[in-house]
Amino acid sequence: MKIGIVGGTGDIGEGMAMRLSPVFDVIVGSREQDKAETTCTMTRDMLKKRGKDCSLAGVSNQQAVDDADVVILAIPFRHLEMTLASLHGFEGKTIISPVNPMEKHEFFTFVPPADGSAALMVRRLLPKSAHICSAFNTIAANRWKALDEELEYSVPVCGDDESAKHDVMGIVNRISKLQAFDAGPLAVSCMVESLTPLVLNIARYNKMKDVGIQFR
Amino acid sequence: MKIGIVGGTGDIGEGMAMRLSPVFDVIVGSREQDKAETTCTMTRDMLKKRGKDCSLAGVSNQQAVDDADVVILAIPFRHLEMTLASLHGFEGKTIISPVNPMEKHEFFTFVPPADGSAALMVRRLLPKSAHICSAFNTIAANRWKALDEELEYSVPVCGDDESAKHDVMGIVNRISKLQAFDAGPLAVSCMVESLTPLVLNIARYNKMKDVGIQFR
Repeated sequence: MKIGIVGGTGDIGEGMAMRLSPVFDVIVGSREQDKAETTCTMTRDMLKKRGKDCSLAGVSNQQAVDDADVVILAIPFRHLEMTLASLHGFEGKTIISPVNPMEKHEFFTFVPPADGSAALMVRRLLPKSAHICSAFNTIAANRWKALDEELEYSVPVCGDDESAKHDVMGIVNRISKLQAFDAGPLAVSCMVESLTPLVLNIARYNKMKDVGIQFR
Repeated sequence: MKIGIVGGTGDIGEGMAMRLSPVFDVIVGSREQDKAETTCTMTRDMLKKRGKDCSLAGVSNQQAVDDADVVILAIPFRHLEMTLASLHGFEGKTIISPVNPMEKHEFFTFVPPADGSAALMVRRLLPKSAHICSAFNTIAANRWKALDEELEYSVPVCGDDESAKHDVMGIVNRISKLQAFDAGPLAVSCMVESLTPLVLNIARYNKMKDVGIQFR
């Protein structure tokens, strides 16, 4: 399965490439292909030191969409609409939104768009045949990148296409010790996206380094 | 410390009385004092069988407010406004809202009032000197009542008065294996209240009996 990461040279995108590329064919997209290639070289080196092979290619964001079966939108919310407007070819693909619309002032708040959530905004902006799922929302960039530590977190996954959601849950379950949970249709993705400002506040107010979530 | 439970004969309220009364002086309030007394007798018997002493009194909702230092609003959201309008004497007390404004259709959705959350609505409806905290939102009635099982969950607590929040976190931490986390000011209680429809959906879609949350 080929997984494309739009925004693959951002903090989250780089971390995802590190964890996903030993398991899947990963296509790292960036606005600048040079940066994508640099990320791939660095990731290959890091994994090699740990004795791990990987499958990585550094390309443009558009190429990452074109070449992938599953596209992860590793983009901050404020760039989401503009980035999607600059890309095409999402028809029939499975799209993962880990995007959390939030603001930081004195503390973090969940500030969804009029659609109700980032995932629902993605659904409005992409072709109807694209299968949108929200997943990976609560995993921080530095957790993705801490390759010597397992990711022992629960990952709620929302989506309206059962087959696409099944695939996404399968991807989640193959990464470290992540455990996917079906959290329902895309309509309730706001409840997943608001977990991230919640855990960021909990980390802050309880002086914790990172806070993850487990459902049990 | 005297803890009053408004709605103490409801499903959640009864469960809270069972867990709290071996540790604190618990005043079970109800619209009908008879029902409150019946709940206390039943709870005393259940705890006695397990070799536990408890401190319980069954009274009216108003008496539960009057006699308590800390008042828990164990009321469904749809009855919250009417119940608070029928009571008085909240001045200077610490108020715990475990209330989750949600609706169930095909799945559970978070449907907050115009205030943004049930806790913020409580703040608007009660006197300014009442210290509102949200806590216990995600613990289901049958978990409260399963006295032979530990409650190994994380409990996010929101509130604007640091001293009241500290007291509430102290109460949480004395019940079973619950662990309190400061989740910030009352302004972000919407992010706590929306956890409950999320975990109810996860339970439903993953065929789990109960789903609790742990932050780690």
